Amino acid sequence: MDPFRSLLLLSSLFSVAAPHSILQISPGSRRHGDRSAWKGDELYCESWRFSVETNDAGVWKQVPEICVGFVREYMTGERYASDCAMVSNNSMSFAGGVEIAGDGKDAWIFDIDETLLSNLPYYAAHGFGSEVFDENAYNEWANLADAPAIPASLILYNGLKGLGFKLILLTGRTEVQRNATAKNLLLAGYSNWERLILRGIDDVGKPALVYKSHKRAELEGEGYRIHGNSGDQWSDLLGMPVATRSFKLPNPMYYIE
Amino acid sequence: MDPFRSLLLLSSLFSVAAPHSILQISPGSRRHGDRSAWKGDELYCESWRFSVETNDAGVWKQVPEICVGFVREYMTGERYASDCAMVSNNSMSFAGGVEIAGDGKDAWIFDIDETLLSNLPYYAAHGFGSEVFDENAYNEWANLADAPAIPASLILYNGLKGLGFKLILLTGRTEVQRNATAKNLLLAGYSNWERLILRGIDDVGKPALVYKSHKRAELEGEGYRIHGNSGDQWSDLLGMPVATRSFKLPNPMYYIE
Repeated sequence: MDPFRSLLLLSSLFSVAAPHSILQISPGSRRHGDRSAWKGDELYCESWRFSVETNDAGVWKQVPEICVGFVREYMTGERYASDCAMVSNNSMSFAGGVEIAGDGKDAWIFDIDETLLSNLPYYAAHGFGSEVFDENAYNEWANLADAPAIPASLILYNGLKGLGFKLILLTGRTEVQRNATAKNLLLAGYSNWERLILRGIDDVGKPALVYKSHKRAELEGEGYRIHGNSGDQWSDLLGMPVATRSFKLPNPMYYIE
Repeated sequence: MDPFRSLLLLSSLFSVAAPHSILQISPGSRRHGDRSAWKGDELYCESWRFSVETNDAGVWKQVPEICVGFVREYMTGERYASDCAMVSNNSMSFAGGVEIAGDGKDAWIFDIDETLLSNLPYYAAHGFGSEVFDENAYNEWANLADAPAIPASLILYNGLKGLGFKLILLTGRTEVQRNATAKNLLLAGYSNWERLILRGIDDVGKPALVYKSHKRAELEGEGYRIHGNSGDQWSDLLGMPVATRSFKLPNPMYYIE
């Protein structure tokens, strides 16, 4: 790449992002342009996705407007399914090497939303993460118990069961959603979990990272060995104690602290 | 996507990866095919990159053979530069909000290789990570002190200096490489670092995560507040103590434990 083009690229990238941008050009200048402008958006959105999936982006509230089409294509095309399948395969590769003691304490933790179940039908109807989160509308959707399984996660779930892992579901959903959640899981094909942990009254308002770390600590206190932990949010995975291996599923639609 | 195509996709993904694959088809069957076979490889390689950058892949030794072309295109085209620019921008956004105390203890840690300096010229001549690592050839390259800066990292480095951060360089290179490393950094445009920490005799053989965590603990012991940490390897970033914010740069060419 010649230096000018390189600088232009840097400029256009820095322009869209944030109040503390290093280099500034007007973002509007490339929004309604020709093919190369769209190509620029795609490049930007690929990098935005990188920063989101590596947790470099930190807290973010909505998918950037210029990336809505990108996220839609990613989620509804082959890429999301492919990334999920890769995660499941990585997980199963690791799980196959774990020695199962047979005392019922070899555990694997799963988050639920965007990990076991897909809320894509809801998000497809709500701008793929570009709209402000509407808790009432989302809870109505969740209560329908109609979210499909992520196919690769269902294969992994059953594979881990077959290996003898105890499957513990740890979700940010609250106890009032227990029945709808269990019903949805069963309808989607998940069964025979060891435990379904939802936020109790004391957990409401805690950041997910704090709540989930605390629950993992309790599980270890009960003697569970947490070999694997699968989640689409870094707040599912980070915080002590961590699992032996953590597996980040893709989710470019929303961020939970 | 229709269910059959979806299953086929899952199958092809699971086939290439690992000894514990859930579903098996012959990987060879799609290696010398038509356009759609190549499209399948690209989809696979995009997902492989996802799993590498999120640390889902765990330890890996070489770029998969079918992804060499993909990695070459990623590294030498616009995407790598774009991803690096996004990371720098994320970093600077965070840094701009940090209150600098003025006691000289507000620190930012940088890894060197594939973080400040790019060894792409070396890797381009050695299969983009698909060859077994050749320590002698690599050290010869490093001793040339000829690695260019990653442009976005140089901008970030100078931006952080301007904000008043103390910049601490923490590398897996050894003390015998101190002169060549300092020379290379200066030639590439980096200057006025607070400290350049390389592996001493006691550190050789330690996993990078252990060595780097230990050095961060020492720095905190000296009173440094580690606000940010930039590295291309998860072993640069994980392990206690962690920085307030960690920034993962892209690197699909090699993995360091």
